[in-house]
Amino acid sequence: MYTLYATIGSGNCYKVQLLMRQLNIPFRVVMIDVLKGETQSPEYLAINPNGKVPYLVLPNGEGLGESNAMLLHLAEGSHLMPQTAQERMRVNEWLFWEQSSHEPYISPARFWISIMPEGRAERETEIATWHERGAKSLKMLDDHLSKNDFLVGNRYTVADIGLFGYTHVAGEGEFDMAKYPAVCAWIARVEARDGFLPMMDFAEAA
Amino acid sequence: MYTLYATIGSGNCYKVQLLMRQLNIPFRVVMIDVLKGETQSPEYLAINPNGKVPYLVLPNGEGLGESNAMLLHLAEGSHLMPQTAQERMRVNEWLFWEQSSHEPYISPARFWISIMPEGRAERETEIATWHERGAKSLKMLDDHLSKNDFLVGNRYTVADIGLFGYTHVAGEGEFDMAKYPAVCAWIARVEARDGFLPMMDFAEAA
Repeated sequence: MYTLYATIGSGNCYKVQLLMRQLNIPFRVVMIDVLKGETQSPEYLAINPNGKVPYLVLPNGEGLGESNAMLLHLAEGSHLMPQTAQERMRVNEWLFWEQSSHEPYISPARFWISIMPEGRAERETEIATWHERGAKSLKMLDDHLSKNDFLVGNRYTVADIGLFGYTHVAGEGEFDMAKYPAVCAWIARVEARDGFLPMMDFAEAA
Repeated sequence: MYTLYATIGSGNCYKVQLLMRQLNIPFRVVMIDVLKGETQSPEYLAINPNGKVPYLVLPNGEGLGESNAMLLHLAEGSHLMPQTAQERMRVNEWLFWEQSSHEPYISPARFWISIMPEGRAERETEIATWHERGAKSLKMLDDHLSKNDFLVGNRYTVADIGLFGYTHVAGEGEFDMAKYPAVCAWIARVEARDGFLPMMDFAEAA
């Protein structure tokens, strides 16, 4: 059995749960309250010395960090992971792009606007930067999805799950999603997949 | 033939060149001057609409972004890419960690301290944050390397190349490398590998 250490509202935690659900991989979730500092507790640091979530403990007891490394490991050999070198290259490209050029802007804007709004006022300069850069990444995603139903090979793969995590809640960071109609249509396509699990249910499952 | 669009002094560009060199993959490098705005020129945007480097054009004419996606694609099937699911998982974990928790602190600190020092004064607050977080990631790397000669499977792999890119120039960002003796010893081990190419030669090759 896999154990996923996760926190409410995190797109990085949610996407790992969504993948395991859609692949019928048995797992349990242990909720860690980041806002209460639980990732830095001695108990949690004994499990994950890096003090971050998500953190996945494999059936053999080994721990794995990095949400997208979890996705690649769990999807390997399944119908959600392409087999050609060409498509696997594109899966990796999208997943690295998500962590380097998309999530770093969408996630903190959403955090300080919707999750911790009391900290917003002192971060308006950073929020403006995140909005500018996140709008650019959403536009890039929209351009691609205006010509493709899904990110890689025109079918639903682990890359869509990786990108869906934060993209579908970008509106909570005051990104104007009406500007990205192809992204919105793709979100609806992902939500229509068998075994789809909304992020809200993830929180309620705690 | 592969074509790598790159800029001088970029660890992300350098690591791709280092891998191709060590795998004896024929390639040419086209230098793009980011500081002169060349990544935003109409000519470059026609090649890479995202306006970033590195950018790799494959022998079939397709373009690929994201340095670590390039490393994984180029290393696949070679002696630098492990074949077991377990070790591949760790390669991915380190490469995602590099982009999400290491490079975002080491690289900008180095940029504003050593490459564009005229912009340093107005960024001392951010530099302090980068120093704090980068010190934590260097400590994590040092802990791992104090028990392992290389990052994955105790032998030199694509993961070492991915991490080497920015780690070996962290001192240029005023990270005190004397605090990380296992990292320094690993840097020396990487530099001693056959086919090693220093970053400086990358710049001079332009």
